[in-house]
Amino acid sequence: MTLDAVLARIDETLPQSIDRLMELLRIPSISTDPAYRADCARAADWLVKDLESLGFSARAAATPGHPMVVGHGGEGGRHILFYGHYDVQPVDPLDLWDRDPFDPEVQDTPKGRVIRARGSSDDKGQLMTFVEACRAWKSVHGALPGKLTIFLEGEEESGSPSLIPFMRDNAAELTAELALICDTSMVSPGVPSIAGQLRGMLKEEFTLHGPRIDLHSGHYGGPALNPLREIARIIASFHDETGRVAVEGFYDGVHEVPEALKRQWETCGFDEKDYLESVGFTRAHGEAGYSTLEQQWARPTLEINGLWGGYQGAGSKTVIPSEAHCKITCRLVGDMDAADLRRKLRAHVEARLPQDARITWDGHLDGAPAAVMDTSRPEFEAARQALSDEWQREAVIVGMGGSIPIAGYFKEILGMDAMLIGFANDDDAIHSPNEKYDVESFHRGIRSWARILARIA
Amino acid sequence: MTLDAVLARIDETLPQSIDRLMELLRIPSISTDPAYRADCARAADWLVKDLESLGFSARAAATPGHPMVVGHGGEGGRHILFYGHYDVQPVDPLDLWDRDPFDPEVQDTPKGRVIRARGSSDDKGQLMTFVEACRAWKSVHGALPGKLTIFLEGEEESGSPSLIPFMRDNAAELTAELALICDTSMVSPGVPSIAGQLRGMLKEEFTLHGPRIDLHSGHYGGPALNPLREIARIIASFHDETGRVAVEGFYDGVHEVPEALKRQWETCGFDEKDYLESVGFTRAHGEAGYSTLEQQWARPTLEINGLWGGYQGAGSKTVIPSEAHCKITCRLVGDMDAADLRRKLRAHVEARLPQDARITWDGHLDGAPAAVMDTSRPEFEAARQALSDEWQREAVIVGMGGSIPIAGYFKEILGMDAMLIGFANDDDAIHSPNEKYDVESFHRGIRSWARILARIA
Repeated sequence: MTLDAVLARIDETLPQSIDRLMELLRIPSISTDPAYRADCARAADWLVKDLESLGFSARAAATPGHPMVVGHGGEGGRHILFYGHYDVQPVDPLDLWDRDPFDPEVQDTPKGRVIRARGSSDDKGQLMTFVEACRAWKSVHGALPGKLTIFLEGEEESGSPSLIPFMRDNAAELTAELALICDTSMVSPGVPSIAGQLRGMLKEEFTLHGPRIDLHSGHYGGPALNPLREIARIIASFHDETGRVAVEGFYDGVHEVPEALKRQWETCGFDEKDYLESVGFTRAHGEAGYSTLEQQWARPTLEINGLWGGYQGAGSKTVIPSEAHCKITCRLVGDMDAADLRRKLRAHVEARLPQDARITWDGHLDGAPAAVMDTSRPEFEAARQALSDEWQREAVIVGMGGSIPIAGYFKEILGMDAMLIGFANDDDAIHSPNEKYDVESFHRGIRSWARILARIA
Repeated sequence: MTLDAVLARIDETLPQSIDRLMELLRIPSISTDPAYRADCARAADWLVKDLESLGFSARAAATPGHPMVVGHGGEGGRHILFYGHYDVQPVDPLDLWDRDPFDPEVQDTPKGRVIRARGSSDDKGQLMTFVEACRAWKSVHGALPGKLTIFLEGEEESGSPSLIPFMRDNAAELTAELALICDTSMVSPGVPSIAGQLRGMLKEEFTLHGPRIDLHSGHYGGPALNPLREIARIIASFHDETGRVAVEGFYDGVHEVPEALKRQWETCGFDEKDYLESVGFTRAHGEAGYSTLEQQWARPTLEINGLWGGYQGAGSKTVIPSEAHCKITCRLVGDMDAADLRRKLRAHVEARLPQDARITWDGHLDGAPAAVMDTSRPEFEAARQALSDEWQREAVIVGMGGSIPIAGYFKEILGMDAMLIGFANDDDAIHSPNEKYDVESFHRGIRSWARILARIA
């Protein structure tokens, strides 16, 4: 029972594992702020040394931004790549933190013990679950469980500008049989979750131009075209009364969720009531005929993220503004094509323009397709069983409403499938003050990876 | 031919009249800026002295804000009150002025001679047309043309906070048989114009509240109610596809323009092509079935003056905001009741609210009804003839799309009808850099008042 020995080692050495994580958490590797550039390099170096101590051949590879950590180790079996990121979000507003964000502490809370610090959950705590599983394995077996590549980015929280070039330049080195990604949460506390699908993203922005200049509503109110009224009319045309997007061809490439998967989701432990009530909703407001989870994970959206024009100050101003502005994002699912959808969206808007108005598009052209994992791969069933054993609760293959482009890049650039397994909880406050990671997530996360590696590596 | 003598005197003394106006223009009486408080008092004192030199018994009456200038003079005939304002708008942006706004100059331009300075048109130049007419009359006849009260405000450009209390406290003193107001423009250069109707005003503002906090569009996009989408839907419901306001009961109290008046408007010299094209329109965009002038002068409107919510910065943010905001003004005509309309507007919005959304109203409760002048009073026909004689062009009784509350206050508080006659032109750049007043407007304006006073005082 060599796995049992590894799990026992993990349990025995948990205090040391936490200490190592806290060392990493003390390095303020905020990637978006140039003031922390040296700290990012320091975190990369710390990880290189730590991987080397496990027998990895590791390096911090320079990029125009922050270094990429790449380590290779072990041999035999399936070649597995693990991805995580060592950079963290900024800490503002600092006055809402109960303590220094980079002075980590283990705290007892009514919901259990937590590690409190910036990055504790996103993503230093999560990436270290994999590293610590490797360490326990090595110390019991004298070797890693198989051929492993560890790939840790330092720019995830600042748009990953170096990621795609680095992957292209180092494609052969980074290509494995499967990528594991640990940067997601569990659908509900204690419910081990594998992401089977992620939504993609299209970003668009436009300005509707009407009169040449701002007009006085006394002198021109009536005869004037009002851009605010026109943009409202166009936005109102985006959805029909059932909540369905009314842009022609919007649903091309969208597939219904298979019945079997739908039944799995129904029992996956998602707390619909809490999800809705915690933000003030008595019901889901999306497309009629679809469950809350389908609306969140499996249906595309067209959201207005920003809308503005005219006077926003105190009191009143009798202005008919010359412009109105709108920011849009669409979440994509299935085989929806971002470029095709952009054309359809623009055609929808242009077709509804009144005479004497015109549109300028300020689109952000970085659309990303949805990522649908190949959950028929045997590693998914193996991971599901491993996670179910560890958490004593049937593991679930869930969807995710957000977009994690790395999974799509692995497929597109390296032809490599990905499996996303994470142990974060929705209350971890990632990107917010007082971020924490449950000690249970950390501990059982390490044990989960040991069990998964035992089955797939 | 005593009128001829007065007109001749006006012509001879025009240079002195311009000099006096320029003296007044040198006083920077910006009412909204406390730094110019003493200058406002100085302008009031200057006017008191000037009126005293014409035999008026005049005073600068203190208020919590800037002083009111009140002068009484003459005797016999109809008691006439004249209203103007001596305060001016701020001068920002100063760098767009070709010279010091308070260093007036007579300039030759391709369109004729102008007096250039802040306040030259609005309203110091206009109010001095009346004062100079009185001066010429006095110097020819040794007396004013009849019993006159001159009432000059110093807070018109800053919301007139002292006006209503002052009128109530001094009602007996200020009540005359008719008020003359010189603060409007001509419908077209050289076309003498009497305002027969002004639109009223209703101001409203609301916030649509959705989720308790800003949401991430990955985690909540789909199930979430989006306040930006909902506010757009509500705004889009305000008008039907013919441009008519779709709020139930909105048109209660609106009357069609009598055919005779409509015919007058058709030949009033309004340059529709220039009005539209100068701001980029190829056609009028208001209610189908109404002319451009009707849309501007005789039809009510519901305009969105400000609309905002969500992210307005550079790039993209995947936010579903918790609030959306909207500022509205309605222009009222005929017998529309502002308080009643506010109820209807609010009911229209509330009836369209989805579950889980709510509205807070931030209404500015200072609605003003439309002012419809009693143009059947003999003074209107008398003024029309006087103006036609002076300008050698049939004077017209026009509408005005804007709102000048003073006319309504005279009626409401003092029971006094008003007649609005002004000589400004649309290109005077009032409230803007390089404000000017045509010397022709000033000269013929003075002559016009002399002719009008000869007929009605």
